[in-house]
Amino acid sequence: MTMRAMQLTGPGTLELRTVPVPELGPGDLLLRVGAAGICHSDSFVLSLPFPMSEKPLTLGHEIAGTIEAVGSAVDGRSAGERGIVYLCWSCGECRECLRGNENVCLAAGRTAMPPCPGLGPDGGMAEYVRIPARSFVPIAEELDFAHAAPLADAALTPMHAIRGAMDQLWPGATAVAIGIGGLGHVAVQLLKALTETTVIAVDVDADKLALATECGADIVLKADENTAATILELTGGRGAEAVFDFVGTDPTVKVAVESVAPNGAVRLVGLGGGATGIDAGPAGGPGLPWGATVRKSYGGNRSDLVDAVALAAAGKLRARVERFDLADARTAFDRLDSGAVRGRAVLIP
Amino acid sequence: MTMRAMQLTGPGTLELRTVPVPELGPGDLLLRVGAAGICHSDSFVLSLPFPMSEKPLTLGHEIAGTIEAVGSAVDGRSAGERGIVYLCWSCGECRECLRGNENVCLAAGRTAMPPCPGLGPDGGMAEYVRIPARSFVPIAEELDFAHAAPLADAALTPMHAIRGAMDQLWPGATAVAIGIGGLGHVAVQLLKALTETTVIAVDVDADKLALATECGADIVLKADENTAATILELTGGRGAEAVFDFVGTDPTVKVAVESVAPNGAVRLVGLGGGATGIDAGPAGGPGLPWGATVRKSYGGNRSDLVDAVALAAAGKLRARVERFDLADARTAFDRLDSGAVRGRAVLIP
Amino acid sequence: MTMRAMQLTGPGTLELRTVPVPELGPGDLLLRVGAAGICHSDSFVLSLPFPMSEKPLTLGHEIAGTIEAVGSAVDGRSAGERGIVYLCWSCGECRECLRGNENVCLAAGRTAMPPCPGLGPDGGMAEYVRIPARSFVPIAEELDFAHAAPLADAALTPMHAIRGAMDQLWPGATAVAIGIGGLGHVAVQLLKALTETTVIAVDVDADKLALATECGADIVLKADENTAATILELTGGRGAEAVFDFVGTDPTVKVAVESVAPNGAVRLVGLGGGATGIDAGPAGGPGLPWGATVRKSYGGNRSDLVDAVALAAAGKLRARVERFDLADARTAFDRLDSGAVRGRAVLIP
Amino acid sequence: MTMRAMQLTGPGTLELRTVPVPELGPGDLLLRVGAAGICHSDSFVLSLPFPMSEKPLTLGHEIAGTIEAVGSAVDGRSAGERGIVYLCWSCGECRECLRGNENVCLAAGRTAMPPCPGLGPDGGMAEYVRIPARSFVPIAEELDFAHAAPLADAALTPMHAIRGAMDQLWPGATAVAIGIGGLGHVAVQLLKALTETTVIAVDVDADKLALATECGADIVLKADENTAATILELTGGRGAEAVFDFVGTDPTVKVAVESVAPNGAVRLVGLGGGATGIDAGPAGGPGLPWGATVRKSYGGNRSDLVDAVALAAAGKLRARVERFDLADARTAFDRLDSGAVRGRAVLIP
Repeated sequence: MTMRAMQLTGPGTLELRTVPVPELGPGDLLLRVGAAGICHSDSFVLSLPFPMSEKPLTLGHEIAGTIEAVGSAVDGRSAGERGIVYLCWSCGECRECLRGNENVCLAAGRTAMPPCPGLGPDGGMAEYVRIPARSFVPIAEELDFAHAAPLADAALTPMHAIRGAMDQLWPGATAVAIGIGGLGHVAVQLLKALTETTVIAVDVDADKLALATECGADIVLKADENTAATILELTGGRGAEAVFDFVGTDPTVKVAVESVAPNGAVRLVGLGGGATGIDAGPAGGPGLPWGATVRKSYGGNRSDLVDAVALAAAGKLRARVERFDLADARTAFDRLDSGAVRGRAVLIP
Repeated sequence: MTMRAMQLTGPGTLELRTVPVPELGPGDLLLRVGAAGICHSDSFVLSLPFPMSEKPLTLGHEIAGTIEAVGSAVDGRSAGERGIVYLCWSCGECRECLRGNENVCLAAGRTAMPPCPGLGPDGGMAEYVRIPARSFVPIAEELDFAHAAPLADAALTPMHAIRGAMDQLWPGATAVAIGIGGLGHVAVQLLKALTETTVIAVDVDADKLALATECGADIVLKADENTAATILELTGGRGAEAVFDFVGTDPTVKVAVESVAPNGAVRLVGLGGGATGIDAGPAGGPGLPWGATVRKSYGGNRSDLVDAVALAAAGKLRARVERFDLADARTAFDRLDSGAVRGRAVLIP
Repeated sequence: MTMRAMQLTGPGTLELRTVPVPELGPGDLLLRVGAAGICHSDSFVLSLPFPMSEKPLTLGHEIAGTIEAVGSAVDGRSAGERGIVYLCWSCGECRECLRGNENVCLAAGRTAMPPCPGLGPDGGMAEYVRIPARSFVPIAEELDFAHAAPLADAALTPMHAIRGAMDQLWPGATAVAIGIGGLGHVAVQLLKALTETTVIAVDVDADKLALATECGADIVLKADENTAATILELTGGRGAEAVFDFVGTDPTVKVAVESVAPNGAVRLVGLGGGATGIDAGPAGGPGLPWGATVRKSYGGNRSDLVDAVALAAAGKLRARVERFDLADARTAFDRLDSGAVRGRAVLIP
Repeated sequence: MTMRAMQLTGPGTLELRTVPVPELGPGDLLLRVGAAGICHSDSFVLSLPFPMSEKPLTLGHEIAGTIEAVGSAVDGRSAGERGIVYLCWSCGECRECLRGNENVCLAAGRTAMPPCPGLGPDGGMAEYVRIPARSFVPIAEELDFAHAAPLADAALTPMHAIRGAMDQLWPGATAVAIGIGGLGHVAVQLLKALTETTVIAVDVDADKLALATECGADIVLKADENTAATILELTGGRGAEAVFDFVGTDPTVKVAVESVAPNGAVRLVGLGGGATGIDAGPAGGPGLPWGATVRKSYGGNRSDLVDAVALAAAGKLRARVERFDLADARTAFDRLDSGAVRGRAVLIP
């Protein structure tokens, strides 16, 4: 049996190919893909000047679909169940997995990136995908695949970043989200659902700020050279208790460190390589204040995903999506790269 | 009445002067100084090319002594009591003070440095010092002043840094202390007293490493270009769960980020301005791993100090000290700057 | 100068007396009372068959008012400021006070009840009251005294109980409040403001349940022999993650232990002496399930009060009150004892 | 193939029977048993006046052994590996399992007792036992089976109870262990390994107290009517921050509630049904003080077990054991019931 799959066949080369439907191991599930989200990290992989793997790689780590076939040793799953895929295919046995920190599974060493569909194993931009049974997370009947798929990363990752800053997000505190794209617009919703903070959204684009408002942001700021100063003004000169940077370039990192409060939390989710203002020098000036923590947050735990799915089922979380045919992936990528996507782009096989 | 005081009288100028004994406000105590520690931050202040204050400033924020006089509105304190001085003279009323986070008192704004004796108000390198009654922390009769004074900063600051990383310091984890000076040699003792971790001490100086061993370090490493690699080797390639950098220069920060484990804690205590390897780029390479937090830890809470005093009383913590006459402060500073002091230098008025 | 004060002059005897206005110590404030709440604990004191103190005692520990005079050693307060009184007059110096646990101040020994106005020192059911300056918490101009006074206990105490159960109150969890009186109706509001839980309110009285609905309860249950079973049914057989019992009699404690989930939190706030179902026997039956914690929560920390005041200022918390003249205290008590008060009864001097 | 197994064949009836070696499912392991510990809960089961199951049940939930055969779908395990068995055979998929709280797995409902070998499925008092692959935890080569087996419960259960009270076990705090039997003597070692507390051991038996001293207890107390008073005296009248009761009868629960500090932790591990002093009445008297939590702790998480195994490998934990032939189980039970076993009795097949 064959299927269509959107594959990375060389540096920067994306091709819709006909390939065999994956074979199942005893502990696997075969998923008929309902939708697959497109993430900036896919875009990053497409931009690499060297091959990711020796053979063509099916992209896609935000996957929703229906169980088509069940491996011989899998208990408790059956064909027809609808769900999404937890993207950290961790060992499940190590100290960190046992503690619920699957995203830093010891089996992945210091690199701490467990195998992820679409970035090693074949991913979900295809008609079918093979997944370990343990990575399947059921979803409610009411949730369509296009809105479910982005939960796998665009909700998981901010959920984890937010939870890791929860001690700063007390009622009355201020939280800032910089970059209202795929992750950012979900982050705003999560902050409103999980905390009683004042949420400030920052972006360079007016449409993105309108989306932030729609998602519940209390204050929106068009990013400029005064953004940090404005946040300080809005917080009585003290700064925001938590700043989530979904961009991670030098200008956004600068805003983050200059607008976070002492003992506050800077969470770098976007991977733009920015570094401005983070050093071991004395605090007291404009840079990183005393006691603030800076963390590069990656993915999330399975429990984060399960809880995000529950919030979606309860109507407290809904990704905004633009749908594209699987065959139109390149168009979708171009739109993502130009910053035009409102929310998340998803491919429908 | 007059007294002798070691004062900063201009940029880089230290003078032993005769000055009036401080007058007490109703909420103050007058302390007869028994010993005053010398800290790298005093050295930093001495090195500034501009004046710290308009009038001469008595240095010294590590103060031990005996109550000589009690302000009219002070309850519960009496002349003759021995103690040390908590160095964050915070407001005691704000949200952060109420939560026990006096070192980031809101009254100090985003700068988050409450008034500190010797760095604003006159400090303890004198025969007497005026302190707010609330800053007085009693010590056991058995603890002499020379060993007590360093608790005020050289124990307080690592205590706070360690506590803020306690979730990573589980039994069996690895902790690294870089720089075995005044704070570092106490940090090693605190790590052994408070945790069941393997403690690795790093320094460029063999004598400092011998001191680390004496303080209980399990492993000592002479710092070189392989330090991070060695720590990775010692931790099965994963890295240390917490790295405390008491130096904070580019080379030590580089060691810290390259040897810390995913989800681990980098605590920058030394203020050398280093920044290497902390950015918002993808992890997975040698730099800061996923999930690790970087924090510039400042001072500590009053409760940290009270607990450090209790550990000292229980015999689990003892600063190594070199004693100097108050008049010999310059000699002591020179010795500190050259890296020759073993433990902490203290001045005896 | 004299004033009117509602005093306990003997077992069960309440008298409006003319007494001297209190004299101030250097660290005190004199407060002109704007309102004083009536609590079940006042009622309990009135019911005691023995004298509480040798001399007449002015009752009242829920106090709001205006600063009339400031002690000589008090900084930062001035006449005319409006505020409420934090009721744990703790030492402010001990390990627990330093950690922010003033309600279990070490100075009160194992009894752990620091002096409280109206239950030792004279309280607020009078025209004026003397308070330690540290116990004063400012309130917003918009908050009238009648609505402010109940924050001092009816908000403080559930705030503390809820915070001590926060690890169980995750989004999607279920919280139960039993007894929708003075504390309970505020607890429902706090649960809605601080958590994303489903809140179930339980009471024997339909009016109280209507009040609970008005306060935001998601589900209200008229208490009967099936209450625990109904809660189990509503929670898929698992039980509620947290149960706050503001009554504390045998029947309510029974509901609490039989409806709480494994690892859940039972918080006994009402002091009815109930004990049903709490023992060291095997779990697995109807009684206290494995891992659940039972705690007798008392008062709260100053930081709890400050945060409750902030919630009130933000419009997320508003006590329902019935106003009585100071002279009509007996009428108010009778109404409270008969269960007729909707929310909190407050006396206006 | 057949094997010998010690089975419960009726109320109070223990028989050594020859039964078939268990068959493996695809996700199972067959373990050749090296040692099986005897627990008071086995004794409890033996004492029940009604049948536990329709067919004979092999007892034993503390199991150490060698993998003999591996189910067809099991990855990463091979014959010859040595290990012990995690006793909560939880679902691994529910919210609580994902959070690492396997001992209150949702699949077991409010009862919260996942299937446990020897108390449902056949246990380890036999030559072979079938276990789910996920329950296998490897042990170091140096650890013999007799010392390893007790880790599965006698270390797991106190480990979990202690961890759940860690916020009270600060350096300088006091911890009490009541009952120095199989679990208690390990608890003393764990408290010394994991905390810097003063550990007080309480028992009625001088030999058990000698064992406690050998295990590192700082103070031992022969239980009598003054035990609580003595603990209060030893803690300056305040009480111990945590009390672990491994007996759970009325007298021991009374000691626990009367000797715990305000905000302290009472952990009921022994299931003697005691209830004295736990009620919703006002604190301030001899009973349960304000803020203290009471919890019936059950088993532990897989991560607790992995960490206990690591402590044993590091030489910080060693169960004291008495060895018996499998055929002599009755003798061992009799010795356990009479209180004569020093540490843990283990059966060697």
